Amino acid sequence: MAPVKEGFEGVEWRIRVADGSSVVPVSDIGFARKVWLRAKGLVSCLGLNVWMFLKKAWDIGANDPRKVIHCLKVGLALTLVSLFYFMRPLYDGVGGNAMWAVMTVVLVFEPNVGATLYKCLNRMFATFLAGFLAFGVHWIASQSGDRFEPFVVGASVFLLASMATFSRFIPSVKSLFDYGAMIFILTFSFVAVSGYRVDKLFDFAHQRISTIFIGTSLCILVIILVCPIWCGQELHGLTVRNMDKLADSLNGWFFFLSRSRSLFLKDMLRTSVTTVSGCVAQYFTNIKGEDDKKVQGYKCVLSSKASEDSMANFARWEPSHGQFNFRHPWKQYQKIGASMRSCAYCIEALNSCTNKENKAAESIKKHLSTSCLKVSSTSSSVIRELAETVKKMKTSPTIFMFVGEMNRAVEQLRNDLKSLSRLLDLSTTAENKEHETPLAEATGSVSFMEIIPVVTLASILIDIAARTEALVGSVEELAKLADFATNDGKSKKSEMKDKIVPDEEKPEGTLEAVQRV
Amino acid sequence: MAPVKEGFEGVEWRIRVADGSSVVPVSDIGFARKVWLRAKGLVSCLGLNVWMFLKKAWDIGANDPRKVIHCLKVGLALTLVSLFYFMRPLYDGVGGNAMWAVMTVVLVFEPNVGATLYKCLNRMFATFLAGFLAFGVHWIASQSGDRFEPFVVGASVFLLASMATFSRFIPSVKSLFDYGAMIFILTFSFVAVSGYRVDKLFDFAHQRISTIFIGTSLCILVIILVCPIWCGQELHGLTVRNMDKLADSLNGWFFFLSRSRSLFLKDMLRTSVTTVSGCVAQYFTNIKGEDDKKVQGYKCVLSSKASEDSMANFARWEPSHGQFNFRHPWKQYQKIGASMRSCAYCIEALNSCTNKENKAAESIKKHLSTSCLKVSSTSSSVIRELAETVKKMKTSPTIFMFVGEMNRAVEQLRNDLKSLSRLLDLSTTAENKEHETPLAEATGSVSFMEIIPVVTLASILIDIAARTEALVGSVEELAKLADFATNDGKSKKSEMKDKIVPDEEKPEGTLEAVQRV
Repeated sequence: MAPVKEGFEGVEWRIRVADGSSVVPVSDIGFARKVWLRAKGLVSCLGLNVWMFLKKAWDIGANDPRKVIHCLKVGLALTLVSLFYFMRPLYDGVGGNAMWAVMTVVLVFEPNVGATLYKCLNRMFATFLAGFLAFGVHWIASQSGDRFEPFVVGASVFLLASMATFSRFIPSVKSLFDYGAMIFILTFSFVAVSGYRVDKLFDFAHQRISTIFIGTSLCILVIILVCPIWCGQELHGLTVRNMDKLADSLNGWFFFLSRSRSLFLKDMLRTSVTTVSGCVAQYFTNIKGEDDKKVQGYKCVLSSKASEDSMANFARWEPSHGQFNFRHPWKQYQKIGASMRSCAYCIEALNSCTNKENKAAESIKKHLSTSCLKVSSTSSSVIRELAETVKKMKTSPTIFMFVGEMNRAVEQLRNDLKSLSRLLDLSTTAENKEHETPLAEATGSVSFMEIIPVVTLASILIDIAARTEALVGSVEELAKLADFATNDGKSKKSEMKDKIVPDEEKPEGTLEAVQRV
Repeated sequence: MAPVKEGFEGVEWRIRVADGSSVVPVSDIGFARKVWLRAKGLVSCLGLNVWMFLKKAWDIGANDPRKVIHCLKVGLALTLVSLFYFMRPLYDGVGGNAMWAVMTVVLVFEPNVGATLYKCLNRMFATFLAGFLAFGVHWIASQSGDRFEPFVVGASVFLLASMATFSRFIPSVKSLFDYGAMIFILTFSFVAVSGYRVDKLFDFAHQRISTIFIGTSLCILVIILVCPIWCGQELHGLTVRNMDKLADSLNGWFFFLSRSRSLFLKDMLRTSVTTVSGCVAQYFTNIKGEDDKKVQGYKCVLSSKASEDSMANFARWEPSHGQFNFRHPWKQYQKIGASMRSCAYCIEALNSCTNKENKAAESIKKHLSTSCLKVSSTSSSVIRELAETVKKMKTSPTIFMFVGEMNRAVEQLRNDLKSLSRLLDLSTTAENKEHETPLAEATGSVSFMEIIPVVTLASILIDIAARTEALVGSVEELAKLADFATNDGKSKKSEMKDKIVPDEEKPEGTLEAVQRV
């Protein structure tokens, strides 16, 4: 902005002074001035960019201070490992090969415990294995005479490197030993090839292994002792957050308590009241909620597959921490994630229903709004209850009540759809006519095309309810696998024998009820 | 399996011989036999597992021979770099530091050109920068006296390592220089800390830089000269494949030419005929297609975001290759991917419509099937044409015709929905009644609830058509950015001035027509 404005001033000034013909000296001054202004502009532009960059960096740090802590941890680990250079006894102890320890720290240190452990264990294991193999190859090569030695070593490097690289393409190997395969190639090539030049090969290998051991131990100590970030806990938190976001997107509860516009909102308002955050609620009230961000929450669910997968992969390496055992069923979190995404796909379809130009008839919207909102809000409650279940790692005694309520809401929505038909369906026989309500007059002037958007919305909502029930199943499975505590604090297994759940606690239409039938 | 079966035989045999009381010797033999059988079982089980693993590995190689070629390339590069050990002049040339070259090859070699170039350039640039900075720090430290030297060096390592680590959290830095930041920390720590012990620091840094240069050059040569796999080409191919899969999922064309069951299929059968691969077609024909895999193709689209992102990121580093320039708009492929996923979400919703128990009335299905199938097949044709456009990098002269056809199909579907209403809507006035068709009798016995599934399906199909049009927009944008050739082989830019596209070539309802209005 600055250079343009100043350049403009320069032009004005030139015209006033030059006064017609002799513009040469003025243009010279103008040129120098222009260069100066251009340079000034560039510097200020650069300064602004740097400032913006620093501001962004500051925001990143301020939003998640754990990132800053991680950086300090890396600095700490590197400074500690530098002591092997600064202290003569330590330096001599590793035979001047302290650089391997430095390299190990830089390459292995990751922001969370799981990834660091994965890399540390892979690095140690692969270095040992490759070292031993390389010794074997070296011995064979040295037996084959001076002339053939390079060929034997070269061929073995070619073969083993190719095979190890190929193993990285096999999914089961990749998920567990990808880094290990790389380190295997590295160490094997080092030790086998060095054997041709280095006289004391055993010392060389020994030093490499011991320095790597020092580096990895240091990393493990720092990562676990200084503000550890556990991958498992992160995955757990992400799952809970995503459930909350999904619930927010669906949430149909009400809204602008004081400013309720339509009468049909009344019976909803009697119950729990928050803001119009769900897309369904916004559709029926025709009022844009204050936070569109909440409605878009389901998009986070859609895009979190990659991070879920990598977290579940790393969490396996973590020891028991917090509420999680060593063999916590992390894979089940991936399944829960898949169920959540399956809900989110439908919410996406729902959103494009509600975002369309409002061609639906108001009277029909009025007729179906109560039950549609009920379905979306009860599904939302179910998901929120599931989030609570996962968060506290305690089975919810009320989840079946919520599921029952959702199923009743779905039933009610189906009935409302049917009652729509009573009006529109020619085939309805006379005896049904007597049940007709004042709805008849309300919908009297509605064309079929105006019904379609609302009917589609209702239909997708019913689908979402079904998918929510599948999500309940996934969480149930997790509760079983991870042995979640029941409400009175006991774990499920311990009380499986001495407690019989009374049937009447679970309302009809729940998942278990269905399974029992 | 084997041990269980054999163990069973063992039990039978024992009973027959022992004949009642004295079971001790038999049980002894039985125990030895059991151990033997268990061991045999274990070995055969292990053998089976190894065999399965090898078979899987073989399949992976057979399905994509380029993976095998990549492995051979890694072996080749490592063998070549080993020459620095095996040849005395080369070994002496790098002062015995050949290991850095080996390490560079192992760490930098990736399956495709883009990722390798990214790592190579990052590694070189970061090594230079860190080397110079470390020299500066070393000089300052050496000026501050023996006592303070370790503290100055340690503090600088702590600070710069922390800052470089933090920079990896900033998205813009991460996407371009993530690996570089790591190598920066590595080299800086090495050179700065080594300065305390190594006397000829300049030689040390010089050797590290020159060996890294040798390693990266070798990698670049091998990766580009031996069967190169270009990331850009891969991304391009993935996009085309995904479009084809999306089109397959939607494809509504027909089917079992000889075994057509319903009369209403007749007019479809007159046109192009393949198999029932689309879910819509399967729904209306009530016949499961032979390849369910094709219908599920859209799921690949849903799950390919991560690979698209990383490929687009690496493709930026690749030089001009094949049809692609250096500054090919790779980011636009990500946008096309997003548009495709937006379609795929709706297909997922559609699929759960069609997978439900067929509660829809056959007569209604019959009434809407032609237009529903028409919409799905024309959308499919549009997407297939887009795939062809992207594949050949040539703008399609017929795409607007296809879009127009799709829009006409949508219009027809809307009309069919309206004509449904003529029957069901009480508000229809008498003058409309005369247009009534034999449909009236057909739907006479249909309840409103039986209409809902089909109406929902139709409604989602209309939504899919709208999203397909958005996809057309994304591809148009790519064609503009990448300067796709028009059909007569010229690129768009070169003929923009001398050609005026006649309006009548584009049927009404196309994207451009809409934009012009």
